[in-house]
Amino acid sequence: MRSLDPAVEVVEFTPTPEQYAWTFGGAAPVARVRPGTALRLWSDDAFCGRLRSVTDLPGTALQMPFVNPQTGPFLVEGAEPGDTLVLHVVDFEPARDWGASALIPFFGGLTSTDRTATLQPPLPERTWIYHLDSERGTVGLDLGDVHLDLPLEPMLGTVGVAPAAGEVRSALVPDVFGGNMDTPELRAGTTVYLRVNVEGALFSLGDGHFRQGEGESCGTAVEGAMNSLVLVDLLKTPGPAWPRLESDTHWTVVGSARPLEDAWRAGQVDAVGWLAGLTGLDTLDAYQVLSQVSEVPLANAVDVNYSVATKVPKRLVPAARPAYGGVHGRLRALVR
Amino acid sequence: MRSLDPAVEVVEFTPTPEQYAWTFGGAAPVARVRPGTALRLWSDDAFCGRLRSVTDLPGTALQMPFVNPQTGPFLVEGAEPGDTLVLHVVDFEPARDWGASALIPFFGGLTSTDRTATLQPPLPERTWIYHLDSERGTVGLDLGDVHLDLPLEPMLGTVGVAPAAGEVRSALVPDVFGGNMDTPELRAGTTVYLRVNVEGALFSLGDGHFRQGEGESCGTAVEGAMNSLVLVDLLKTPGPAWPRLESDTHWTVVGSARPLEDAWRAGQVDAVGWLAGLTGLDTLDAYQVLSQVSEVPLANAVDVNYSVATKVPKRLVPAARPAYGGVHGRLRALVR
Amino acid sequence: MRSLDPAVEVVEFTPTPEQYAWTFGGAAPVARVRPGTALRLWSDDAFCGRLRSVTDLPGTALQMPFVNPQTGPFLVEGAEPGDTLVLHVVDFEPARDWGASALIPFFGGLTSTDRTATLQPPLPERTWIYHLDSERGTVGLDLGDVHLDLPLEPMLGTVGVAPAAGEVRSALVPDVFGGNMDTPELRAGTTVYLRVNVEGALFSLGDGHFRQGEGESCGTAVEGAMNSLVLVDLLKTPGPAWPRLESDTHWTVVGSARPLEDAWRAGQVDAVGWLAGLTGLDTLDAYQVLSQVSEVPLANAVDVNYSVATKVPKRLVPAARPAYGGVHGRLRALVR
Amino acid sequence: MRSLDPAVEVVEFTPTPEQYAWTFGGAAPVARVRPGTALRLWSDDAFCGRLRSVTDLPGTALQMPFVNPQTGPFLVEGAEPGDTLVLHVVDFEPARDWGASALIPFFGGLTSTDRTATLQPPLPERTWIYHLDSERGTVGLDLGDVHLDLPLEPMLGTVGVAPAAGEVRSALVPDVFGGNMDTPELRAGTTVYLRVNVEGALFSLGDGHFRQGEGESCGTAVEGAMNSLVLVDLLKTPGPAWPRLESDTHWTVVGSARPLEDAWRAGQVDAVGWLAGLTGLDTLDAYQVLSQVSEVPLANAVDVNYSVATKVPKRLVPAARPAYGGVHGRLRALVR
Repeated sequence: MRSLDPAVEVVEFTPTPEQYAWTFGGAAPVARVRPGTALRLWSDDAFCGRLRSVTDLPGTALQMPFVNPQTGPFLVEGAEPGDTLVLHVVDFEPARDWGASALIPFFGGLTSTDRTATLQPPLPERTWIYHLDSERGTVGLDLGDVHLDLPLEPMLGTVGVAPAAGEVRSALVPDVFGGNMDTPELRAGTTVYLRVNVEGALFSLGDGHFRQGEGESCGTAVEGAMNSLVLVDLLKTPGPAWPRLESDTHWTVVGSARPLEDAWRAGQVDAVGWLAGLTGLDTLDAYQVLSQVSEVPLANAVDVNYSVATKVPKRLVPAARPAYGGVHGRLRALVR
Repeated sequence: MRSLDPAVEVVEFTPTPEQYAWTFGGAAPVARVRPGTALRLWSDDAFCGRLRSVTDLPGTALQMPFVNPQTGPFLVEGAEPGDTLVLHVVDFEPARDWGASALIPFFGGLTSTDRTATLQPPLPERTWIYHLDSERGTVGLDLGDVHLDLPLEPMLGTVGVAPAAGEVRSALVPDVFGGNMDTPELRAGTTVYLRVNVEGALFSLGDGHFRQGEGESCGTAVEGAMNSLVLVDLLKTPGPAWPRLESDTHWTVVGSARPLEDAWRAGQVDAVGWLAGLTGLDTLDAYQVLSQVSEVPLANAVDVNYSVATKVPKRLVPAARPAYGGVHGRLRALVR
Repeated sequence: MRSLDPAVEVVEFTPTPEQYAWTFGGAAPVARVRPGTALRLWSDDAFCGRLRSVTDLPGTALQMPFVNPQTGPFLVEGAEPGDTLVLHVVDFEPARDWGASALIPFFGGLTSTDRTATLQPPLPERTWIYHLDSERGTVGLDLGDVHLDLPLEPMLGTVGVAPAAGEVRSALVPDVFGGNMDTPELRAGTTVYLRVNVEGALFSLGDGHFRQGEGESCGTAVEGAMNSLVLVDLLKTPGPAWPRLESDTHWTVVGSARPLEDAWRAGQVDAVGWLAGLTGLDTLDAYQVLSQVSEVPLANAVDVNYSVATKVPKRLVPAARPAYGGVHGRLRALVR
Repeated sequence: MRSLDPAVEVVEFTPTPEQYAWTFGGAAPVARVRPGTALRLWSDDAFCGRLRSVTDLPGTALQMPFVNPQTGPFLVEGAEPGDTLVLHVVDFEPARDWGASALIPFFGGLTSTDRTATLQPPLPERTWIYHLDSERGTVGLDLGDVHLDLPLEPMLGTVGVAPAAGEVRSALVPDVFGGNMDTPELRAGTTVYLRVNVEGALFSLGDGHFRQGEGESCGTAVEGAMNSLVLVDLLKTPGPAWPRLESDTHWTVVGSARPLEDAWRAGQVDAVGWLAGLTGLDTLDAYQVLSQVSEVPLANAVDVNYSVATKVPKRLVPAARPAYGGVHGRLRALVR
C-alpha cells in the first residue's frame, strides 16, 4: 500500500459488526476527523463475509436488508451544508485473500426484478469464489475446465455523505449524495468531491470490489473486504450537484437515476458546467467539446438507481484551469 | 362530510406547523391510534399555504425542502412488520375556499428536470389560484377571457407508512410504502392496504388535491388544505408488495418506479397475483384476464418515482372472493 | 351496424389473403377513394385466423412475420404531404363469432423480450378462445371453474398512413404515422386525424379487438376479424404531429415512444398545443388546464413503441372552438 | 491508408449525389460484390457537405430528411437470410481536410426532443468547423481564446444491412440490422458481423466521423467525408441477433433500443450467449464472467434508438475459441 508524507496524521478504524452502518444518514458518527487527516479504514464485503464457498447461497446465507455494510459515518469538523467534501483515495488493499460474487434472485441486470417485474421465475442462485494471488496481482476463478486469472483492480462500490432533506437511504442506493455508485472509476489515485448536506458531512464508505466489469451485470462484483487509505479535506466552496471524481488523467462526473439515459443526462449536464467553468467556454461550446471528447463507461445498471460516468480526458483540454483550486494535485503530492 | 356509525370512536387532529412531518419514517408519532378508530385530520396544502395569489411565485414564496407537509405519523397499536394496515377514506372536505397550482422551475412533466437534465433554461414560474364553490361543487379559474369551472373531485396525493430497512424518505416520494402517489383513485370511499414495515406502522397523510388530472402534468394539482375522515384498521395477514386500493367497484394496485413502464410492470405483476388469489385462477390465466379487463390511468409522471394505477373492475370478475376477508365492506358499512 | 346518410357513397372491400398488407408504406394501394366516401372493410384478426382452439399455439400456428394483416392501403385522392387525413369510425362489427388471445414467447408486458432482455426462459405459450354472444353483447371465456362474460367493446388496434422519409414500418409498430397504437379509444364514433406523409396518404387498418384492457398486458387482446364502416375525408390544413382522435366527449392525442414517459410527454406536448389553439390560452395556461383535466389511459406497453392516450374532456373546456373546423360534427351527422 | 494483399480484388466506388441512399432497405443496389472482395468507398458526411463554415446553420443549410447519406447498398453474391455478413474495416482515411459539427434544434442528448418532449424552446443552432492536420493526426477547433487539437480517430457512424420483414428504415436509425450505431468501436481493424435479412444482404455504410465522444452528446460528431477500405466476406452460418464487432483485442456486441438500459440488456444477453459459445461455459457462468470483465462504453444516446457497446477483452478469456471460425484473423492477415 502506498504511504503518506509523515506529516499527515493517520487515523485507523476497523468497525465491529455492531458498528456497521447500513444507511447514508441516520447513523451516529463513529469518529470525528479534521480536514487534512488521513483515514486507514477496513470495510467488510457487501455480503458481510457470509459467502465463503460456492455452497453458501444468498437466499440462506444473507440476512436482508443487512448487506453492503458501511464503515463510518465520519463527522468532518467544520463541514457545513453546501461545502465540498474532498476524499482522496491514496490506496486500496484487499483485506482477505478471497472474494465472492453471487446471483441473487430477482436482482441484477439480466433478470427481471421487483421493478422491472415479469411473471417469469427467478434465475437460479449461484455463488462464485475468487482467490487472490497478491504476487501476480490477480483473482482466480475455477469454472470446471475453464480457469480465469483476472487482474486485481481494487475499487470501492460505495462512498457517500448523509443525504439532504432529512432523508436516510439504504447503502444500496446511489444518488446525488454518492452512495452505491459501483463505478470502477473509484480506484486508487482518485479524488472524490461531494456536496455536504448536513453538519459534519457524515461520510462513509464500503463495498470493496477486487474488480468489477462496467455495468456490474449480475449485480455483484468480486466482493471483498478492503483496506482503504483516504485523505480527507474540506473546501468552503460550493459542492457539486453530482459526485465528481478527479484523477491525474480525467475529470469525471457520476450521474445516477432511472432510466439509464437520465443518469447519463444528469452527469453530462454537470460535466458541461464543470468544463465551462474550467475553460471559460460558454455552455454551448463546452457542450460541443464534451460531445467530441467524453469517455462514458457504464458504472452500474443494477442498483436502485443506475449510474453512468462521464469522463473528460485532461490531455485533450490543456488550457483548463485546475479544478477546485488544485486540491487534487496538493493531496496527490502527499503520497509516497 | 359523511358521518360514521356512532359506535366508532373519532379522534381529531390538526397539526401545528411545528408538528408537520416532511418525511416517511424519521418522525416521532404525533398520536397513537387503536385499530377500529376513526381519525378526523386536517392537512395543509403542499405549499404550506404560502401561495395565496398569482403574485406568490414558488421561487420566493416556498422554502425548500419544506413542502408537502404530512399530518402524522400515527402509531397504530399492535402493528408489526409484515402486517396489513387498512385505511378507509370515509370522506374528504376542502378546508379552505381556495386552492393553488404552480409551475416550479425544472419540476413537472413537460420540462427538463434535475434528472431528465438538459441545457435549456427553465420554463417561467407561474401561480394559479382556484376558487372553491361548495354549493356547485366546483373550483373556478380565471384565465383572462377564459373562465373554467372544474368539478371538485377531492383526493389525497400522499398517504404512506414508514419505509423498511431504516430508510427515511421525503414526503415527495412514492414507492412501495405508499407516499406521494398522486393518484386520483385515492378518493372518498376507497380502502388503502399498505404493508407495515416498522412497529406501529407510523402512517401519515397529506397533499390534498381539490382535483387533479391523471399524470399531474405540470407537477402540481389544485393543491388545497383538506379535512379527511379515515377509518383505521389492521390485519395480521401479510401486507401487499405495493399499495393496493379497493373501492366498491375496483381493486387497484399502484406501482411507482422509473421508467414509467417499470411502475406499470410492478403494479401489474402484483395485480396478477392478487387476481389469481381472489379467483383461484393460475398465474397465466389471471394474466390473460388482466390483459382484457384492466383500466390503467396514469397517476403521476412528475415525482421522484412515477406512479401508475392498475384497476380491475369487480363487475367483470363476479366469481372473485372478497379481498382481505371483506374488510372493505365491513368498514364501508360504518359510513352513514 | 349503424348506417349512413344514403347520399354517402359506400365502397366495400374485403382483401384476399394475397392482398393483406404487412407494413405501413411499401405496399401498393388496393383501391382509390375520394374524400367524402365511406368504406365498409373486412379485416382479418392479428393471427390471420390461425388460432382457432386452445391447442393452436403461436409457435407452431403463426408464420412470423406475417401477423397483424392490414386491409389497405387506400389511396386518398388529392391527399398531399402535410395535409390532414380524417377517418371517422361509423361502426365496428365482429366478423366472426369467436376471438383469440395468446401468450407468445418473449412478447408482451410481463415477460422479458428481445429488448428488455434477460437470461430467464420464456413464459409458456398458451391460447385462449373467446365466444361472441351478439345478443348479450359479450365475449365469453371458460377457465375451468371460472367463466367470464366480458362486454363486447370493439375497437381497432391499428390504423395508419404511410410514414415519412421513405420508411416502411411493420404493421406491429405505432408511431407518428399511427399504426399499431392499440388504444381502446379507437372505438366507434371516433374521428382520427393523421398527418399525410406521401401522395395519396396510403392508409390502412386492421387488428380488430373485440375488447382490450388498457396496456394490452399480455401483448394480445381478444383478437377478432372485424367489419369496419369508416368515413374518409381530407383537410388541406396542416396535419398533427401525433395521431389525434375526437369523439363527442373528448379530444385525444396518442403518443408512441419508449420509454413510456416519452410516449406520454410527446402526446401531452401535442395536447397542450391543441388545447391552446382551441381556446386561445397561452402555452403555460393550457399546460395548467391540461394538468387538472386530462385523463390518461395507457394504450399499450407491449409494442415496438409504447402508446399513451391524453384525453381532454370537452365538457370541462366549454369555451373551446370546434377542432378542425367542426369536421367531427359534420361527419357524425351523416350517421343514422 | 493500409494496403491489402495484392491477391485481393479491390473495387472502388464513389456515389454521385443522385446515388446516395437514405435508408436501409428500399434502395436498389449500386453494385454486386463477391465475398472475398475489398471495397474502397467514398462516403459524404452526414450533412452532405452543406455545413462548411460557422455561418452555415442546420435549419437553413440542411434539407431534411436528406441527411446521413449512405454509400451503397451493395448486393453480396450468395448472401441469404440468416447468413452472417462479414465486413472487415481495413482502414479509414478522411476525404476532406475539414469536418463539421452542429447543434440542430430539438436534436441531441442534452435538449428536449420530439420524443423527450417539453414545452421549453430549443437551444440555439450553432455550427463548428474542425480543421484536419494529417501530419499531426489531429482535428483543430478554434473557440475564441481556446484552441483545441483533438486526435484524429476516424470511425463510421453507420453500417448496416437491409432490415427484415420488409421494413425500410431511415439511415438515422440503429437497430438489429446495424445502421446508425454511432459507436467509436467501429474503427479500423474491426470486423463487423451482421445477420443477413434479405437476398444479397444489401449493406451500405456512411456517416464518417473524424472523431466522436462516447454518447455523441450533442447529436453530431466531427462529421467528415471518408474513404473506407473494407473487406467483404460471407459465412453460411447463423448470423447474430445483434451487430457484433471483433478486433484484435475485443469481442463486442452493440445493442440499440430505448430506454438506454434496454440497449444495454439486449447487447449483454447476446454477449453472454457469445461468450458461452466461445468458452463452453454454461449461461450463468458466462454471465458471471461478463459481469467482471466487460467494458461498456456508451455509443450514442441521441439517435432513434440509443446504442451501447458491450466489450469482452480477449486477454481475460484466453481459453476461448476463435469466433466465427477465425475469420477475423484470416482477414486481418490480408492487411499490409
